[in-house]
Amino acid sequence: MKVFSVVGITESGKTTTIENIIKELRKRKYSVGSVKEIHFEQFAIDTEGSNTYRHKEAGSQLVTARGYYETDILFQERLSMDEILKFYNHDFVILEGVTDANVPKIITAHNEKEILERLDDMVFAISGKLSNTLEEFEGLPVINAMDNAERLVDLIEEKVFDKLSVKSKVKLQIDGKDIDMVPFVQNILFNAVLGVVKELEGYEKGKEIVVRIL
Amino acid sequence: MKVFSVVGITESGKTTTIENIIKELRKRKYSVGSVKEIHFEQFAIDTEGSNTYRHKEAGSQLVTARGYYETDILFQERLSMDEILKFYNHDFVILEGVTDANVPKIITAHNEKEILERLDDMVFAISGKLSNTLEEFEGLPVINAMDNAERLVDLIEEKVFDKLSVKSKVKLQIDGKDIDMVPFVQNILFNAVLGVVKELEGYEKGKEIVVRIL
Repeated sequence: MKVFSVVGITESGKTTTIENIIKELRKRKYSVGSVKEIHFEQFAIDTEGSNTYRHKEAGSQLVTARGYYETDILFQERLSMDEILKFYNHDFVILEGVTDANVPKIITAHNEKEILERLDDMVFAISGKLSNTLEEFEGLPVINAMDNAERLVDLIEEKVFDKLSVKSKVKLQIDGKDIDMVPFVQNILFNAVLGVVKELEGYEKGKEIVVRIL
Repeated sequence: MKVFSVVGITESGKTTTIENIIKELRKRKYSVGSVKEIHFEQFAIDTEGSNTYRHKEAGSQLVTARGYYETDILFQERLSMDEILKFYNHDFVILEGVTDANVPKIITAHNEKEILERLDDMVFAISGKLSNTLEEFEGLPVINAMDNAERLVDLIEEKVFDKLSVKSKVKLQIDGKDIDMVPFVQNILFNAVLGVVKELEGYEKGKEIVVRIL
């Protein structure tokens, strides 16, 4: 699973850039997920008076709305990016406006000052409003996602690394027989087990974990 | 985790009954989650034009909205109740209008005909509009949740069984040492592992599973 972030101030072109990246990634047959950070304190997806809202107001601590074509799990807290990413198993996950994830980044900006405020080693491209007027900034390519999504996604394919590929060393046996898993499935199982076990007393990073289900 | 459902036609008092049950369960210090089944084909929690909506329209297959005080995971499919319940680890989970879960049930109704249409062995109480006029129906207590939530919740405590308590036999070792887990945590680990493993070729129900993380 390859994760990257698009950061920049309001109206700098984040969502438009992301829309074009998603379309191009899907065109290349990748599976894609995304996370939108909402920098607006009053944000609530549910509307007052709905039945799910009434559940929550009465004291339900986790409310799910299941419709014919969607299922919405409404956590009443700001989950960490690691917790959120456990729900994903896509080829690419794009984070919009997320700053607490240590992943490769694209900056969208109106001007050079905005770039400099966000520039660090993880930035591999610049996009957004500024890309109409500039082609390069301190060695970084400046690419307009609206008319050159192909080039931006070429760069994403090249620069964005697999977030989990290093840490996962998982083995599985069923009825005494070794079961082969592709890295993708290994990662899911690794995250599923570690998500629980690391909360337990006795857990220590780097020690072997064995789970046995009879 | 104890799971039960409240079923009945529109306006029979489902949400009001559930609100009162949730309040009483929380008063008794239980943790409570809930799921609302939405029988309305056009239901969509997200609004046209929002950034998350734009992600989805561009092709993002799983969109999360993270605000200051909530995190909403928006699956673009109707998940099964088993899949949904994996997100829960509460003492009680109440399902509103859900009919595809084999759990104890309360029927809310306007009249006896509506009860009979939904009556089966899993029903342990009747509530809703009808509870103003009736006290018992075919040996089942008819209880008004608005003025007698205590009695209804006494019955819930007595009748609703632990959905997972039987199937979970999980052992955990870290660095060669046995780690004790309360049943609640065992269930989480059991579900986490089985959720992944049962999708793999080689899985067979009832066979021992061993996961080893180095």
